[in-house]
Amino acid sequence: MLKGKHLIDPMDFSVEEFDKIFELADQIISDPGAFSHVCEGKLLATLFYEPSTRTRFSFEAAMLRLGGKVLGFSEPNSSSAAKGESVADTIRTVACYSDIAVIRHPMEGAPKVASMYSSIPVINAGDGGHQHPTQTLTDLLTIKNLKKSFENHTIGLCGDLKFGRTTHSLVKALSRYKGNKFILISPEELRIPDYIKKEILEKHNIEFEEAERLEDVIDKLDILYMTRVQRERFANVEDYLRLKDSYILDSDKLRNANKDMIILHPLPRVNEIAYEVDEDVRAHYFDQAKYGMFVRMALIVNLLGLNLSEAAFDKDEDTVKRTGTKIKAIKNEFRKCTNSKCITSIEENIPQSFYTSNGEKNTCRCSYCDHEYKIQSGGDFDGTIDKECENNRLISGF
Amino acid sequence: MLKGKHLIDPMDFSVEEFDKIFELADQIISDPGAFSHVCEGKLLATLFYEPSTRTRFSFEAAMLRLGGKVLGFSEPNSSSAAKGESVADTIRTVACYSDIAVIRHPMEGAPKVASMYSSIPVINAGDGGHQHPTQTLTDLLTIKNLKKSFENHTIGLCGDLKFGRTTHSLVKALSRYKGNKFILISPEELRIPDYIKKEILEKHNIEFEEAERLEDVIDKLDILYMTRVQRERFANVEDYLRLKDSYILDSDKLRNANKDMIILHPLPRVNEIAYEVDEDVRAHYFDQAKYGMFVRMALIVNLLGLNLSEAAFDKDEDTVKRTGTKIKAIKNEFRKCTNSKCITSIEENIPQSFYTSNGEKNTCRCSYCDHEYKIQSGGDFDGTIDKECENNRLISGF
Amino acid sequence: MLKGKHLIDPMDFSVEEFDKIFELADQIISDPGAFSHVCEGKLLATLFYEPSTRTRFSFEAAMLRLGGKVLGFSEPNSSSAAKGESVADTIRTVACYSDIAVIRHPMEGAPKVASMYSSIPVINAGDGGHQHPTQTLTDLLTIKNLKKSFENHTIGLCGDLKFGRTTHSLVKALSRYKGNKFILISPEELRIPDYIKKEILEKHNIEFEEAERLEDVIDKLDILYMTRVQRERFANVEDYLRLKDSYILDSDKLRNANKDMIILHPLPRVNEIAYEVDEDVRAHYFDQAKYGMFVRMALIVNLLGLNLSEAAFDKDEDTVKRTGTKIKAIKNEFRKCTNSKCITSIEENIPQSFYTSNGEKNTCRCSYCDHEYKIQSGGDFDGTIDKECENNRLISGF
Repeated sequence: MLKGKHLIDPMDFSVEEFDKIFELADQIISDPGAFSHVCEGKLLATLFYEPSTRTRFSFEAAMLRLGGKVLGFSEPNSSSAAKGESVADTIRTVACYSDIAVIRHPMEGAPKVASMYSSIPVINAGDGGHQHPTQTLTDLLTIKNLKKSFENHTIGLCGDLKFGRTTHSLVKALSRYKGNKFILISPEELRIPDYIKKEILEKHNIEFEEAERLEDVIDKLDILYMTRVQRERFANVEDYLRLKDSYILDSDKLRNANKDMIILHPLPRVNEIAYEVDEDVRAHYFDQAKYGMFVRMALIVNLLGLNLSEAAFDKDEDTVKRTGTKIKAIKNEFRKCTNSKCITSIEENIPQSFYTSNGEKNTCRCSYCDHEYKIQSGGDFDGTIDKECENNRLISGF
Repeated sequence: MLKGKHLIDPMDFSVEEFDKIFELADQIISDPGAFSHVCEGKLLATLFYEPSTRTRFSFEAAMLRLGGKVLGFSEPNSSSAAKGESVADTIRTVACYSDIAVIRHPMEGAPKVASMYSSIPVINAGDGGHQHPTQTLTDLLTIKNLKKSFENHTIGLCGDLKFGRTTHSLVKALSRYKGNKFILISPEELRIPDYIKKEILEKHNIEFEEAERLEDVIDKLDILYMTRVQRERFANVEDYLRLKDSYILDSDKLRNANKDMIILHPLPRVNEIAYEVDEDVRAHYFDQAKYGMFVRMALIVNLLGLNLSEAAFDKDEDTVKRTGTKIKAIKNEFRKCTNSKCITSIEENIPQSFYTSNGEKNTCRCSYCDHEYKIQSGGDFDGTIDKECENNRLISGF
Repeated sequence: MLKGKHLIDPMDFSVEEFDKIFELADQIISDPGAFSHVCEGKLLATLFYEPSTRTRFSFEAAMLRLGGKVLGFSEPNSSSAAKGESVADTIRTVACYSDIAVIRHPMEGAPKVASMYSSIPVINAGDGGHQHPTQTLTDLLTIKNLKKSFENHTIGLCGDLKFGRTTHSLVKALSRYKGNKFILISPEELRIPDYIKKEILEKHNIEFEEAERLEDVIDKLDILYMTRVQRERFANVEDYLRLKDSYILDSDKLRNANKDMIILHPLPRVNEIAYEVDEDVRAHYFDQAKYGMFVRMALIVNLLGLNLSEAAFDKDEDTVKRTGTKIKAIKNEFRKCTNSKCITSIEENIPQSFYTSNGEKNTCRCSYCDHEYKIQSGGDFDGTIDKECENNRLISGF
């Protein structure tokens, strides 16, 4: 079922596929020893074009604890990229040496490009501000273990909900389960994008409210998901400095919270959670890191098909499964993706490609960064693009 | 006995604990094959916030030769530290992935902070100019193997004895054994600190003399410990250039040395030992590197408790054992450690903390960098500090 | 036969030794599982003073797939070299920790120096523009597998033939087999050096022709070896920009090529091969990468002597075997190697040393970088050097 697939977008996998991974993760947690040789003879390549200790350690520890081995680089300047090699060439070479690859890249869509040229499974470990699917898997496994189910929770998302893709992905993922309610806590400037409200929440009749002050709503929450205000996300320093200290969780704010509320955070935390909170029994962000390793163990085993006897990896078929629509490569001289953060903006050899998501008529998206464009109203998508959409959104695979 | 302990300061371990480690090291040396699977399934995390190939290789080779596995970073910029994460948060996350951690950090006390928040054993692989305990273990195992005992040696320490913590630790360690004599060879500017003479050597009635010229005393030595004049240790370049070439060991100087004198050096050597000396049978600084790997193997096995059936790791108890005095966290608005190299100077969340060493009345030290302060004369330590001591010294755990 | 030897120069090994390696490589290819534990308990040290993902990955994957383990650094700044340690000291320390070492270094001759001080086998993974022997092994194994023999081929070498040592080594290696013909395709500025024509090709009566346009000769080729125009090789940017786009292989040029011609490239490719060519069945440059891993597996097994029961490693004897002539260390105040890229130009402790190759009378070469010098005409080499040769050449070990 999952053998040979890539994980590029958190929504690449169905609810059934997610369950399959979480089920295996729970087996591993209950008896790690039974899995300590599952990946013997297998090599994981960790290609980090951008440093990220936590994510890299989590993947490497996962592979090593499965009895596999690891090779890779943790910085661009120690890679051939310095010699101007394309992502496509790099993955094709790496695929000669290893059995599965993890890629983190500052450009959006880079892991997607890698998956298109790769003969081995590719896992996206973060492509700029675009996607970070294994963080979503981590969050879900943590919730499943600490709250026993994915249903009927009131989830508070707090902090930077505009740029924080982690929270967007979590909303999408939890919207696939019954009876959940969201409380979106953020400053005016960092509100969650409209398309998430309209096309995820409203479209699926999911209850939600927005709030400006954590104190006002903390007592209603089963799950409080704190996020960091990332310096990188701000155009100017003033905005950053003005906003960074809003929404700091401390013992005061916690006084009104439910006794069984759980506090999550993707980490690293800077100062959005006071250190005094670490001692609180409701603080689970370090457990989260542990669940992150176990879910990656389950993911690797599944993608390598080591626990299954399945048909060999069919890439095209898989691509269809993955994006929910076959990618059309378009010869389109006068039109290319205009997102300056898209991998296509620095690698010309990549064929421009856009897709339409199931049921959408008037828009299409770049196949790599999911940047959205208007298409000729009415008729089917013929590859002609009118203009960029104002409110650029991301509902890939939904 | 050692299971679950941390090694932060060379004096953290008793003579008995040292012996235990050296005994195991000798067993490993005589039959490495017997230990090649002892650490199977165990992960070592190497956190190098400052590069050090030699030390890192030594630890990684040690773990790999024990059948364990390794993950880590070898430079700060490839770590989450870049995102402003605290040492405490980093170690708590790393502890989710690995079974034992090695930390090298430019700030004094950083590994100590890590040990306070860590659920796994932490080994200090060097914290600025503060401590480097496994170098001391390396020096001792080398002496034990080449000179057959720790007693009745005349040890010459040559070079930078002011800043060279390695030599300070060696004096402390060897002062715990009978019949040793020290000859301290250094230029006026780089003499060994007074407190070492007063509170280690004199206090323990250990014979020692100071000399300015290696030639004058080399014939008396059983052990010659050469040290490097480190550029990093000098405030201005002139001083460095003027001093760096003093105390260069060459064949000439060796002519009067005993036939069975052994030459040691922590390495890397720059030019303080002429290359011609490498051919001399008395040169053992490369053997030293090999002993360094074996003693680290023994250390890892002991801290992981793999050769023992012991009670589970008790952190508090251990802290007491370790520092020889329970650390008091002090709410002390008007007073914090003034050492600009102390980890507390860059991480505000760390509770200011000072300790008094057994039997000392009028002084206390920062629990992280061991920087010394005057306390209210007379009565017991109540957390109030008068002022910094002029001659700052380090006798932790003695 | 190969146990304990070093591989510094592609010509270090005889045809028989090459065959031995290729034979083992083929066994590994046909049954990798049979070799997955051959290097158990062995450590490979990868010392990359210059980054090179591809080469490093290839060696690391090779060792890991043999059941061995790896430690190393991938950049100079994370190495002790930063502290000014010599190559000799570094290798002697690394030899304490590991069983075999791979070195990449920007200075010519650095791996040679390492091999002189090393008690473990040293493999040159590239020393500046000097030598890259495992690339030659890779090219040969690829040819052997895809063309079934090393004889009677017409080989086209295209691109930078002046600076591209890869092509020089390939000419030397293939000149040792029967019936091969070379077509040397390059711009005037990047012609293959005269000494290769005179002392390799003509001397061994090997047919060759030179061409300026790939289109004119592509139809004659059995093997087309494309090379990259490396920015690093150019003194000024203008030259680079003017030349870099010459000799780009695309579908057009391929139209007249033989159906069974094979296209090779050392990689990374920048734009000298159009991406459309990747789909062509004749494109084998990514297979080449895979053969590179297998040949390195065979090399490591042979140098560690794991498939043989041989006499222990004798360094001197080996040095003779290796260079085809015993290196004479020369006390020579008034003369040192003048090549600014030679390791001896930055490490003064290395004894100046020159050698004469079998049968040559009037010239000698630096033992480290093979830079060539005139010696007193007539009589044997007595260590006196007259002057540098204009046309500096490299025929080491031929």
